Amino acid sequence: MSLWAKVCQGDFRAAAKLISIIEDNLKEAIPDLKNLYAKTGNAYIIGFTGAPGSGKSTLLSKVAREYRKQKKTIGIIAVDPSSHLSGGALLGDRIRMKELFGDDGIFIRSMASRGKSGGLARATSAAISVLDAMGKDIILVETVGVGQSEIDITKMAHSIIVVLNPDMGDEIQNMKAGILEIGDIFVVNKFDKEGAEQYFARLENILRAKELSNDWKPRILKTIATEEFGIAELVTSLEERAKYLSKCNRLAEYQQRKCRFEIADMLKDEINTKVLEVVMKSGRVNELIQQVIERKLDPYSAVEAVSERIQIILKDSHES
Amino acid sequence: MSLWAKVCQGDFRAAAKLISIIEDNLKEAIPDLKNLYAKTGNAYIIGFTGAPGSGKSTLLSKVAREYRKQKKTIGIIAVDPSSHLSGGALLGDRIRMKELFGDDGIFIRSMASRGKSGGLARATSAAISVLDAMGKDIILVETVGVGQSEIDITKMAHSIIVVLNPDMGDEIQNMKAGILEIGDIFVVNKFDKEGAEQYFARLENILRAKELSNDWKPRILKTIATEEFGIAELVTSLEERAKYLSKCNRLAEYQQRKCRFEIADMLKDEINTKVLEVVMKSGRVNELIQQVIERKLDPYSAVEAVSERIQIILKDSHES
Repeated sequence: MSLWAKVCQGDFRAAAKLISIIEDNLKEAIPDLKNLYAKTGNAYIIGFTGAPGSGKSTLLSKVAREYRKQKKTIGIIAVDPSSHLSGGALLGDRIRMKELFGDDGIFIRSMASRGKSGGLARATSAAISVLDAMGKDIILVETVGVGQSEIDITKMAHSIIVVLNPDMGDEIQNMKAGILEIGDIFVVNKFDKEGAEQYFARLENILRAKELSNDWKPRILKTIATEEFGIAELVTSLEERAKYLSKCNRLAEYQQRKCRFEIADMLKDEINTKVLEVVMKSGRVNELIQQVIERKLDPYSAVEAVSERIQIILKDSHES
Repeated sequence: MSLWAKVCQGDFRAAAKLISIIEDNLKEAIPDLKNLYAKTGNAYIIGFTGAPGSGKSTLLSKVAREYRKQKKTIGIIAVDPSSHLSGGALLGDRIRMKELFGDDGIFIRSMASRGKSGGLARATSAAISVLDAMGKDIILVETVGVGQSEIDITKMAHSIIVVLNPDMGDEIQNMKAGILEIGDIFVVNKFDKEGAEQYFARLENILRAKELSNDWKPRILKTIATEEFGIAELVTSLEERAKYLSKCNRLAEYQQRKCRFEIADMLKDEINTKVLEVVMKSGRVNELIQQVIERKLDPYSAVEAVSERIQIILKDSHES
């Protein structure tokens, strides 16, 4: 039986193998990904993001256990773009998640960039599809809140949990441009720390002042993940969010946005390859580059000059 | 006087202001960047990369001081993609670098992503040009070794220093695909830690076994940055590297590679915008997207079908 067919039957080893192929070389996995795509679209995908040390791994593992009590099957993906350098963090996560291993209803996988260029977001998206095709009800994705990773997850997940801590106090102001925009549920974890109530109040004020881009009002919750405080409430909020999405065609809109984004993103790669072939080999472009090297022209003006001359045509199928 | 002209006269405040504009909205800075480009190309650009906690900030500050003893002027850029989440690290760096502030020969600047999409590498490259145009002899760029940031720096710097620690022992094996490829100089910092000599020997073995992509043999050095041990040797290696590059047209090759990369990279953006305009609005493409949403078609096959039909034409200037 082919790999994708085994994945669709829920085979753990086949899923692990396919994700390894995705990580090593996404292109090799595409035949299987094509075949299993029809079986996707049924999972509830939840992203966890927050700074290192915010306790999001522990929180994620507690949410997984809560969902297991409801007999839901779980897939977990821990995305760690830095693991080829600082592997320690991921190892720590694995230890914290150890209590979850051995439960047949839970599949856990970590993803690292392995120094490949630009591929982690796409590999993560493909890995989510694998778990989705396996039949997992709930897919929990943990991203380290660094650089672009927390932005990428918004394209992949139905619900985004932003994990914060009371001792991040002075950072709230700086975050408004980034992380506050993407959260559907904000969790102030480690709520037993000093200043928790004040932090919560400030966060509430900032979020209340925000203009909402849609009619979902972000929830703010208090948790102490290590003591399982607030976990049931978090799962309740996640289910409220799921109900919200299932109403009024919002899921269809979400699917369309996700599809368009994925296809546009992959097309960019294809087109970039063509551009490098066609444009960067042109004699005129190489003349301009030479002028830039000699500081007779600046690179910005060179790009403008080339860009004006590039034309993109979408041939009709009957023409080709 | 315009901002770029002030920058070219070495004005600190003008440089700081221009870099702020670059960070906030690179497009607004382009007129000034165009004008100052002719003044660039004279600085020796050195990248420092390594895991958080490796001591690369301290090492960088000691290298800066060593170069200051030689009356060289210094520009420092600390790139921290995570600072909008974990701002603490950068603050720590600033404190460690405090001893360098107040010296007129040193300009220090930190760059953060501020949640903007994909722009940090390009903003860093533009900031390097600003310091270069200011007339700085040496530009030291610190990147957090996370995700793609350490790959990007290889496109911008003449020399890459990879900062390692003896307690990263078990990680060496995992690193071979990534960080070991990009280092021109490897520094085992915190050499007073246990196991330093063994770590050094293992690293030496791995690097010796590597096939070199050019005729520069990577150096491996021992430092204790906090005690200024090994710093003079590091600067000597950096100068050896500079001499190596200046021989046999290697700098010209480096310049050409860098220029081609920069122009191709900027062109991709221009073209991606055009693609989204032309391709994603096409009726045929939207039909395919609908099929993907309905799971009648997978996104990979959709991309292939569209990609086949895209044609890129570079019009001649006399045609336009």
